[in-house]
Amino acid sequence: MNPTAARYEAFVKRGLSLNMTRGVPSKEQLDLSRGLLTCLGDDDYLSENGADCRSYGILDGLPEIRRIFADILDLTPGEVIVGNNSSLALMFDNVASNMSRGVREDTPWAAQGEVKFLCPSPGYDRHFTICDYFHIKMIPVGMTANGPNMDEVERLVASDPSVKGIWCVPVFSNPGGVVYSDETVRRFANLKPAAQDFRIYWDNAYCIHQFSGEHPRLPNIVRECAAAGNPHMPLVFTSFSKVSFPGAAVSCLASSEENCAYVKKRLSAQMIGPDKLRQLMHVRFFGGAEGVYAHMRRHAEILRPKFAAVEDALRRGLSGLPDCFWTTPLGGYFVSFNAPKGCAKRIVKLCADAGVALTPAGATFPYGRDPDDRNIRIAPTFPPIEELRTAMEVFCSAVLLAKEEKEETNRG
Amino acid sequence: MNPTAARYEAFVKRGLSLNMTRGVPSKEQLDLSRGLLTCLGDDDYLSENGADCRSYGILDGLPEIRRIFADILDLTPGEVIVGNNSSLALMFDNVASNMSRGVREDTPWAAQGEVKFLCPSPGYDRHFTICDYFHIKMIPVGMTANGPNMDEVERLVASDPSVKGIWCVPVFSNPGGVVYSDETVRRFANLKPAAQDFRIYWDNAYCIHQFSGEHPRLPNIVRECAAAGNPHMPLVFTSFSKVSFPGAAVSCLASSEENCAYVKKRLSAQMIGPDKLRQLMHVRFFGGAEGVYAHMRRHAEILRPKFAAVEDALRRGLSGLPDCFWTTPLGGYFVSFNAPKGCAKRIVKLCADAGVALTPAGATFPYGRDPDDRNIRIAPTFPPIEELRTAMEVFCSAVLLAKEEKEETNRG
Repeated sequence: MNPTAARYEAFVKRGLSLNMTRGVPSKEQLDLSRGLLTCLGDDDYLSENGADCRSYGILDGLPEIRRIFADILDLTPGEVIVGNNSSLALMFDNVASNMSRGVREDTPWAAQGEVKFLCPSPGYDRHFTICDYFHIKMIPVGMTANGPNMDEVERLVASDPSVKGIWCVPVFSNPGGVVYSDETVRRFANLKPAAQDFRIYWDNAYCIHQFSGEHPRLPNIVRECAAAGNPHMPLVFTSFSKVSFPGAAVSCLASSEENCAYVKKRLSAQMIGPDKLRQLMHVRFFGGAEGVYAHMRRHAEILRPKFAAVEDALRRGLSGLPDCFWTTPLGGYFVSFNAPKGCAKRIVKLCADAGVALTPAGATFPYGRDPDDRNIRIAPTFPPIEELRTAMEVFCSAVLLAKEEKEETNRG
Repeated sequence: MNPTAARYEAFVKRGLSLNMTRGVPSKEQLDLSRGLLTCLGDDDYLSENGADCRSYGILDGLPEIRRIFADILDLTPGEVIVGNNSSLALMFDNVASNMSRGVREDTPWAAQGEVKFLCPSPGYDRHFTICDYFHIKMIPVGMTANGPNMDEVERLVASDPSVKGIWCVPVFSNPGGVVYSDETVRRFANLKPAAQDFRIYWDNAYCIHQFSGEHPRLPNIVRECAAAGNPHMPLVFTSFSKVSFPGAAVSCLASSEENCAYVKKRLSAQMIGPDKLRQLMHVRFFGGAEGVYAHMRRHAEILRPKFAAVEDALRRGLSGLPDCFWTTPLGGYFVSFNAPKGCAKRIVKLCADAGVALTPAGATFPYGRDPDDRNIRIAPTFPPIEELRTAMEVFCSAVLLAKEEKEETNRG
């Protein structure tokens, strides 16, 4: 057995069981929001507008929580709707609505023949799952250090009226950690879609999730689109899922006031109001946007060393390998790793066999098909840092072994 | 001015402002669940299965809350999915799913031409709104003291393959307070639909909302349907919206395990899990189904005198009038009042002018069109009992005046 294989086998013998599959906050991070559970006394249920938050109503959410999101997104409360615990549900429902009822009561997408979405890749697998569910054809678009390849995006959006949407994670993208450049944002705002019912799904999940300093200030997509004559094109989504509790936070959709009115029309057939006590808890716990930012600095303290450990392990284990490269994000939840071509599946398998569970190879591409079989999403947030260090040693060992195997095959 | 008009005008002069529009629990009822807000300590977030309820996951809800609903519905936890705060949202989403993706991946309803739902009427306006939203044609079906007119239901369901669904509120129906008879339930289970993708939407919103004694025990629709060879036909919905807090409770969908698997498949594209802290709070607060029943007895203490006050007012004010009749429900949230034909709109208007807001006349029928313009939904739960008594005096006075006006016109 050669030294690379021997080193890997030594890990297998340790019988590890480490999970790096999903972007989930660690227990330590969740404990930062402990006070959220007890911050509402049993006589604290009135909104500033006098509404009893225990009862029905207020489809677009409490004014005070809408104000917090408006402050964070630099919009007005009238451009913001705050819902229950899942921004993914808001995105799914928006796509469902456009498929079956049409954008602003235009012809439903589903009645227009084939529907396509542009999918900057590597990207977020759950976005792709929504497309898959609705039989929307996914067109991969390349990612650069400044965001999606805008030449491709502009060309496809302008030339094909069946292109109805694009998935964007503009800040600390999943998985690359890319922050869109100002130019990228402005080029998005100035798109000239062939389809009048084209929409940008702007999933700003990590807008305030930087590891240090202030959060990135991109040009405001809603304002830029309005200035460019496309006021209803962007649909912005965000949430507190990775601010407070992933399962019990609040979600937000932001767009033009007219778009919000259309969303509320559907909401009024769908339910009698969101969980306003959950919203009020967040208002009481954070106070306002400044309180949220302060809280995010505490998350950053926990996350920074973990991402440093990943960077350190990759650098020590793999630097100098000409066909391995990875991102070094300044925020968010992931590192995007690129292995030698044709090795990603094998690396994930080798890690699994050594007790380290990773996101499946290919998951970061539409249909789970990475054309080069090389991208792997590393999710360092959940495991304790010691486990993370071990997992990364296993990972590097697996990369080296897969690379050797590949070279062997190529020679053979 | 005749004495009837004079009596009505005296009410107008009082400048009242009373609201009986919706079936909403009173503040006194909400206060019964005060402890819910504080029953989770800041270290109480683990489910019995070890899951951290603050984080993602568990699409079908916590096992312990599913068990409570299963006990109440006399089903197994595997036949139950527990969601967020709105059972209406579960119904809407189920219809949306069947419209766009089809029942169990059969041809989508929307791709089959006209889609029809049977709507036992008077019924619940929000059910009708869902149909309206999806352009589903609503066919009114009469209600009897034992439930919908089953001769009509059987005939329409068996003869027309475009009839895809029916809305049922089997216990203390909205607005009539009707409890379906055993025979009605069995006839539902034994329907022979022309459409293989026909579904019964069994909205058991008021299953444990009796004013005294034990809650009604209907034959179990899921078991009866299975026995009749229609195991996947019923979709049962219920919630704790009128058990704990209307805006911050938990909802439930129950059906065959196979149907639940289909629902979960959609859920897995839609979100990463329900708000499990909200579910855990309900588990801690109620303990189990027995705790829920005990809690409902406290609601009944508050509701019984209010419904007695309505009955008393109607009897004293209107008995002996040959063309006025009303229901005297043993549970639920409403009284269904039938005025002389052609008078309902006028009565609601007269009440509004005297400061008493009622549910709009016609709301209890598809498209808001009561063919006889006679049905009015009375919602006595929200106002304090003194206000309710006053509102009912205004109501009776308005009925008498509208009736006199009508007779005047008929003579004229």
